[in-house]
Amino acid sequence: MSKIIDFQTDPSKYRHWRVEYDGDVANLYMDVDEAGGLFDGYELKLNSYDLGVDIELADVIQRMRFEHPEVKVVVMQSGKDKVFCAGANIRMLGGASHAHKVNFCKFTNETRNTFEAAEQDSGQKYICAVKGACAGGGYELALACNYIMLTNDSSSSVALPEVPLLAVLPGTGGLTRVTDKRKVRRDRADVFCSVEEGVRGERAREWRLVDEVVQNSKFDETVRERAREFAAQSAKVSGAKGVELTPLDRTFAADGSVSYSLVEVALDRDGGKATITIKGPDGPAPADAGELQAQGADSYMLKLARELDDAILHLRLNERELGLIVFTTQGDAELLTAHEKLLLDNADNWLANEILKYWKRVLKRVDLTSRSMVALVEHGSCYAGVLAELLWAVDRTYMMLDEFEGDNRPLAAITLSDSNFGTYRMSNDLSRLQTRFLGEPEMVDAAKAKTGTPLEAEDADELGLVTYILDDIDWEDEVRIFMEERASFSPDAMTGMEANLRFAGPETMETRIFGRLTAWQNWIFQRPNAVGPEGALQRYGTGVRGEYNMERV
Amino acid sequence: MSKIIDFQTDPSKYRHWRVEYDGDVANLYMDVDEAGGLFDGYELKLNSYDLGVDIELADVIQRMRFEHPEVKVVVMQSGKDKVFCAGANIRMLGGASHAHKVNFCKFTNETRNTFEAAEQDSGQKYICAVKGACAGGGYELALACNYIMLTNDSSSSVALPEVPLLAVLPGTGGLTRVTDKRKVRRDRADVFCSVEEGVRGERAREWRLVDEVVQNSKFDETVRERAREFAAQSAKVSGAKGVELTPLDRTFAADGSVSYSLVEVALDRDGGKATITIKGPDGPAPADAGELQAQGADSYMLKLARELDDAILHLRLNERELGLIVFTTQGDAELLTAHEKLLLDNADNWLANEILKYWKRVLKRVDLTSRSMVALVEHGSCYAGVLAELLWAVDRTYMMLDEFEGDNRPLAAITLSDSNFGTYRMSNDLSRLQTRFLGEPEMVDAAKAKTGTPLEAEDADELGLVTYILDDIDWEDEVRIFMEERASFSPDAMTGMEANLRFAGPETMETRIFGRLTAWQNWIFQRPNAVGPEGALQRYGTGVRGEYNMERV
Repeated sequence: MSKIIDFQTDPSKYRHWRVEYDGDVANLYMDVDEAGGLFDGYELKLNSYDLGVDIELADVIQRMRFEHPEVKVVVMQSGKDKVFCAGANIRMLGGASHAHKVNFCKFTNETRNTFEAAEQDSGQKYICAVKGACAGGGYELALACNYIMLTNDSSSSVALPEVPLLAVLPGTGGLTRVTDKRKVRRDRADVFCSVEEGVRGERAREWRLVDEVVQNSKFDETVRERAREFAAQSAKVSGAKGVELTPLDRTFAADGSVSYSLVEVALDRDGGKATITIKGPDGPAPADAGELQAQGADSYMLKLARELDDAILHLRLNERELGLIVFTTQGDAELLTAHEKLLLDNADNWLANEILKYWKRVLKRVDLTSRSMVALVEHGSCYAGVLAELLWAVDRTYMMLDEFEGDNRPLAAITLSDSNFGTYRMSNDLSRLQTRFLGEPEMVDAAKAKTGTPLEAEDADELGLVTYILDDIDWEDEVRIFMEERASFSPDAMTGMEANLRFAGPETMETRIFGRLTAWQNWIFQRPNAVGPEGALQRYGTGVRGEYNMERV
Repeated sequence: MSKIIDFQTDPSKYRHWRVEYDGDVANLYMDVDEAGGLFDGYELKLNSYDLGVDIELADVIQRMRFEHPEVKVVVMQSGKDKVFCAGANIRMLGGASHAHKVNFCKFTNETRNTFEAAEQDSGQKYICAVKGACAGGGYELALACNYIMLTNDSSSSVALPEVPLLAVLPGTGGLTRVTDKRKVRRDRADVFCSVEEGVRGERAREWRLVDEVVQNSKFDETVRERAREFAAQSAKVSGAKGVELTPLDRTFAADGSVSYSLVEVALDRDGGKATITIKGPDGPAPADAGELQAQGADSYMLKLARELDDAILHLRLNERELGLIVFTTQGDAELLTAHEKLLLDNADNWLANEILKYWKRVLKRVDLTSRSMVALVEHGSCYAGVLAELLWAVDRTYMMLDEFEGDNRPLAAITLSDSNFGTYRMSNDLSRLQTRFLGEPEMVDAAKAKTGTPLEAEDADELGLVTYILDDIDWEDEVRIFMEERASFSPDAMTGMEANLRFAGPETMETRIFGRLTAWQNWIFQRPNAVGPEGALQRYGTGVRGEYNMERV
């Protein structure tokens, strides 16, 4: 599995999904092309999915937010006759490397979370209309929707058969959503997760596994009815016209470095690191929401979000040996703040809202990236508002202090904006500054008092916004030593450490999915009972059950 | 490592700890006997510990609660000159099986939690007085204390060097307590966990790693002063006289079955299960707190808690291939309720309070046991009050319905008491019934309305207290099929599934330690970078660093 995985696609290339737009309702059909696997060696039978299927799904969802703001209800359904979705493709999982499996699960989890975010952030509600077997990752797709309808026939059921069948967990949020979203009684959850065939009909509703069970003959009609009802209840503004998400401006160099219009990704394979340089805007902010809409995908804030998102995903899946991501920015902080302010001031405009909410997701994607991350605040840098969030998304921050010989750029400074106090909440539902200062909440207020003022190194240090401030004499050595040190540590230990240090404070379903469920799944994905030559994943489909070491740990 | 690990000890056998009682202050010295390792092949240098050292510590802590209720402040300190504690012994970890490592960490975590519980539950506060190097598990001992004092000399520091030195995590609550208890700023936590040598002096206080830094010459005096201050502030009643925790009445049969006075543990190795049978009381409850004190360790409620606790620990560490624990009880529910009521009515009596709080810990130990668990509510059973908690601590419950042929025991019934509504809170700080009915909180009220009434199968089922009710025709087959099914699943998948299903609802530091930190540590304990032949744990002490695969997952 060494070919480059591309996260960019568009409807003209879809092989697995189709959407029928019907006014404020979108009918989303999963109709996986068996021969359309991302890699060789498996067929995507029974509407099973691999990362390629999920990349399309993520694209559909993103386009529904930006290109189809008129959509208030999305009805997820199967395009096949007898099956809703059989979940992640087992042969693909059996053949994939540990790192691919883990990153695949993370991306699918992030995509599932966007179903829920779509309702919360922009009033786009997901209904899942289940006909046929809905198992494993299939039921996890349903669980991420906010209303699940199940037809009442002998072959339609919901199931999480991973444990009995495959000796792994329903790792795409399934266990967490069963306990914490659907609030299924624990003993029933235990039974449900132990039966391969799942639960059907009225029992599924009684056990809180679905919201509504409908007679087969009335199913399609009832689904349409519910979609209309929910659309009528939606607080989403009607009549908005979308903006097209045009292809990214992106080129790959021979050494693997990537250039976008606003983002550069430079690779240092010997040093085990990638440097992401973000450029500030080079023109004024749109005058108003109308100009923003006219600029569409070319508006600075949307374009940058899309490029950064793509860069992060590319590094995660395709550059797995680069354990350190270095963020740096260059540009005019005042201009950047103006671009962001246009969005903040027009947060009731659908597009401004969508761009802000997209930034929230992109920054969460950074938080959740299993790499060491550092931000360098160099002279000429542009850490203001939304980009200042990067300073606290990363593990540490180094900032230049005073003038550097031969460096004529403006002195390094950080500018806070109103957005740093709640606009881009982390998975724990706190702002990054709140999380940073859990032990000293008064520091959040101190920072707030400085909103809008460019803060040079000593002020930033005093406010606790950076880890180290270093002058011309120390900068180069200290930064180099840190990077070398990081490259010498075990990547696994760093992953575990960072996963534990990055999510202080309250837990949410999201932090629980990424912090707990993922960790257990990762553990199981290493165990011979699941992935060994006689483990369940290899044995699947052979008619022979996995051989298990029965020791409990 | 196949010898039986015994969790029972007493002060006459201690090799690693000593306590000096000084009125309401106990000075607890860690002074590990290098030659006193639980297994061969390593020396416990530098006050490092293995499970044997921790078993003694758990015993000390337990005896301070029961035998020394006069103690209001415990000062944890080193009995060695230059070192506080170097943490878990690395050679022991390098040589231990995965299952032993995981269970070792779980037990040490449970023991650390009791430091915090001692203050919360009975006003016994732990101070940690750190002189010398306090690293890894050593600092985790300190973190579990509620006040950390550090002497200010050149050799005294606190450190979590696991990641840089050993490629594993500080897995005994370290990372979680750094972020959530000490609320250390995330970038500082990152730095702290990356430097082998740790942090000294004033910086340790500024970074919130310790509470007080004291000049070396005044350290001992200041520690004594703080101990006196905290003792004076304690709400704990003065002048209580302890009860002796006499040796358990316990015999092992040739097949490994264990008999206590009130608990029987029968093993079925072919079936992969252990059955724990609990006997109800055979005499009346003590008339009052005075009689309870006179009975001491012979009182039913205390004796049963100690026996059950020992049985669970024994099964966890010594019978790792028995993946299913079956609970069953026999006895007079009315008598049991009377014994418990004496405690509930006298909760302001120190001993009654200690016994109730001990039950809270024992039931948490059950919750946290990495085995499938089932309770059988048979005719003649005694699931009332505290023992009814077992019904919701386990994964499922089967209850006998109506009369069974040839069975003259009283019909199976469950009796709720006031204690089922908050006395024995789980790690998530909810009662087991609240957790069970997260989605239907009105069910808790419905159950409450039936307090004191023996509930036969149909009533128990309607109230959602059991999973299945089965009559004479179905009972044997259904129970057998469940047990066989459970024995056929992968133990790892069950462990992961149960860890995710058992802790719905709010997170606490405890659930985070057991749910998230433990899972990541388990994952890392499987990874070649840590435990492989060229991994850091094997290479430790050789002067050669571990060889790491640099791929991030």
